[in-house]
Amino acid sequence: MTKKKNIPSNSEQHLGEMGLENFPPYLMNRIMGRYNASLKKELLSLGLTTPQMRSLAVLSVINGILISELAVYAVVPQSTLSRALDVLEANGFIYRDVDEADTRAVHIFLTSAGSEANDRLWPHMSQANDAMFEGIDVAEKQAVVSTLKKMLRNIRKHKF
Amino acid sequence: MTKKKNIPSNSEQHLGEMGLENFPPYLMNRIMGRYNASLKKELLSLGLTTPQMRSLAVLSVINGILISELAVYAVVPQSTLSRALDVLEANGFIYRDVDEADTRAVHIFLTSAGSEANDRLWPHMSQANDAMFEGIDVAEKQAVVSTLKKMLRNIRKHKF
Repeated sequence: MTKKKNIPSNSEQHLGEMGLENFPPYLMNRIMGRYNASLKKELLSLGLTTPQMRSLAVLSVINGILISELAVYAVVPQSTLSRALDVLEANGFIYRDVDEADTRAVHIFLTSAGSEANDRLWPHMSQANDAMFEGIDVAEKQAVVSTLKKMLRNIRKHKF
Repeated sequence: MTKKKNIPSNSEQHLGEMGLENFPPYLMNRIMGRYNASLKKELLSLGLTTPQMRSLAVLSVINGILISELAVYAVVPQSTLSRALDVLEANGFIYRDVDEADTRAVHIFLTSAGSEANDRLWPHMSQANDAMFEGIDVAEKQAVVSTLKKMLRNIRKHKF
């Protein structure tokens, strides 16, 4: 196999000099790719998609949030989320409630069936997370969570 | 807004007790969502998609790899990657070369136009990465990269 490195002439450090493995977005992308892949079987067996799984997980923590907020927390574009919620509603996993003060604002709630679906998924999400941290001690895990929180605060557009 | 926490009865810590912000996959998903969003304008101006951008970036480091390897590095399903490469080839950014020893194996190479497109994208990728690490010192950045590498090694399916 031919492996050739392109070292550009500009003075700033290029990806080729840094190495893919030292570029955090590359590492996080690879890790999240494996995390999502490891949940595929469970999602298939429950007939859920990744945006639906994320929506249920977020709602299990903050039930009743607005669709626009759910889109941010679940990192799903609003158009995709809207279709995902249609299916979750048809399956009896969520229901919508219009805000009394603002009829354009729609709140999303988990039903007990939705909560049960999430409870069945959660052990697999938790396990997939634990698998990442095998052999990594508590202090190092806490340190990475702390840094990831700072990184999110640095680049998020919303207050949450 | 109604905020309600579901605290399940099982003994293991649930996402609701842990809080979304202490669940690393949630944090990485949010961070990568912002990282990808911040590159949208540049991608549009170059007429590239995220899988195409990632392919160019990976090829700039490891030119000539197999399609199957590129799919892993770029975290793009092979069917999506295949279409992305068709477009990159039509635009003169990459070319394919069949392995002399194994005609089923196809190597992908950057053309000089592809290398230039990547050189135009890279400063924005680098900037988006720098924005994440604002106010985070070198030692902390090195620590998070080191932990992310361990996490990837824990869960990757391939040797690389």
